[in-house]
Amino acid sequence: MTRPSLLIKLTNHRMLSRFQPLPEKGKNGQQVTLPEKKLFKTISREFAVQSSLFFSKTGRKGVKNMAIIGVLLSGCGVYDGSEIHEAVLTLLNLDRAGAEILCMAPDMEQNDVMNHLTGQPMKEKRNVLVESARIARGDIRDIREVKASDIDGLILPGGLGATKNLSNFAFKRDDAEVQPDVKRLLVEMVQAGKPIGAICIAPATLTKALSGYDPEVTIGNDPATAEAIEAMGGKHHTAGVEDICVDLRNKLVTTPAYMLGPGIRDVASGIEKLVLKVLELASL
Amino acid sequence: MTRPSLLIKLTNHRMLSRFQPLPEKGKNGQQVTLPEKKLFKTISREFAVQSSLFFSKTGRKGVKNMAIIGVLLSGCGVYDGSEIHEAVLTLLNLDRAGAEILCMAPDMEQNDVMNHLTGQPMKEKRNVLVESARIARGDIRDIREVKASDIDGLILPGGLGATKNLSNFAFKRDDAEVQPDVKRLLVEMVQAGKPIGAICIAPATLTKALSGYDPEVTIGNDPATAEAIEAMGGKHHTAGVEDICVDLRNKLVTTPAYMLGPGIRDVASGIEKLVLKVLELASL
Repeated sequence: MTRPSLLIKLTNHRMLSRFQPLPEKGKNGQQVTLPEKKLFKTISREFAVQSSLFFSKTGRKGVKNMAIIGVLLSGCGVYDGSEIHEAVLTLLNLDRAGAEILCMAPDMEQNDVMNHLTGQPMKEKRNVLVESARIARGDIRDIREVKASDIDGLILPGGLGATKNLSNFAFKRDDAEVQPDVKRLLVEMVQAGKPIGAICIAPATLTKALSGYDPEVTIGNDPATAEAIEAMGGKHHTAGVEDICVDLRNKLVTTPAYMLGPGIRDVASGIEKLVLKVLELASL
Repeated sequence: MTRPSLLIKLTNHRMLSRFQPLPEKGKNGQQVTLPEKKLFKTISREFAVQSSLFFSKTGRKGVKNMAIIGVLLSGCGVYDGSEIHEAVLTLLNLDRAGAEILCMAPDMEQNDVMNHLTGQPMKEKRNVLVESARIARGDIRDIREVKASDIDGLILPGGLGATKNLSNFAFKRDDAEVQPDVKRLLVEMVQAGKPIGAICIAPATLTKALSGYDPEVTIGNDPATAEAIEAMGGKHHTAGVEDICVDLRNKLVTTPAYMLGPGIRDVASGIEKLVLKVLELASL
């Protein structure tokens, strides 16, 4: 797998701007570029601490490559979009591991809009990409423009949007259809041998998209959902909230998160393991 | 300060349900209650590791009290509500430290609705409490019902909602008015000697609400905002993204977060310090 050099990426991507000094550190307020040697030291230390496992050396100035990981969002809120805690914990762990992040979502109307205070449907329309942009702080792309060759791995946070917008599993169970661009990218990733992580209920959509590949996943221990996954051609493994399930053949990593909960620190543990495993598989 | 016993709280609050076994661990699928001794051990270990500093002993079965920390939200999204990453990181750190969490927001129309993909205003109306419920997963209260005596500390995540909905500082700068229930609760907290944390731009609203108390805060290093804070009777201290500013006299803790950024792991560092300091001050 060849990748553009790190130095090119540094000039292109917002998430790397931390390697630039903050404005107040420049003399007279101007933007200052770190000397190349200091840049190298900053990155090296980080990789030594957090990511030494994951990335092979390029030999170019001794700087290691960074993985670019896609995060596929489905709206903003557990009942009609991406589960917000799961999405943010995914971003946090990717950023801490030094990965580059590419958020994406389909540009389509949400299948429904839920009032998260009452749990009742609302009579309004919202767009999946526009609402997902709230979690991504505006830095997000239409999934239609994203190819497997743009990324080294892909992670789908959970929330009902993963089965209401990325597919219609929430309504049709094992008769579900997967949103066409989502299905295309998921199949491209498996065909390219690149890893996919799926959190909470998202493995149901993943299973349907990859039904021809005998995917092995977990959504925790819910019998009805596990049965639907098996009916879609998947194999379900029971797991705890701090566990990950790894399908090494297809490079799929799944964790139950809020399918079990109960609290944010519990789901944080499984999501951290999932992110690190996706990064490890992205380097193989 | 007297508090209801821990055992009463255990039966009342969702955030403590982690101390109940997961359903799959019960024989024949039934709910099982942990024996009291095991419950005690679980909690004690946790407190020993993470929170031994913060809570005084009750003498009751050797179990220490948990702090109840309010989290005041202002919508869901950096441009018109709570900054989502900051809010989730606040919840994560509170949960990890063993605190009980009480999310709240004002039940009022948002001052505006922003398209987070384009950065442009949208022609629709949304309610602050209803949108905040997305971050709180539905477990949230109207701030009107919350008194300082209900909580041991209060944290305000940032995002423009903190200065568009909790006050109108974003529009009126030092002529801002603070939403009446927000102002009431903030003043009650200071009068009760209970700590308040404010993240990112939220210290501007905090300063206006507490202008009679000579509050000392940071919003990072933005000169115009710092000047407005001084014009509202506050004292501004320049700080970095990983720093906290502590006003010990008023028990105020502030951190710049996404006023500086640039990435989620950078803001995570300052927010973790802020949460731990609020918990420490809540125990004094």
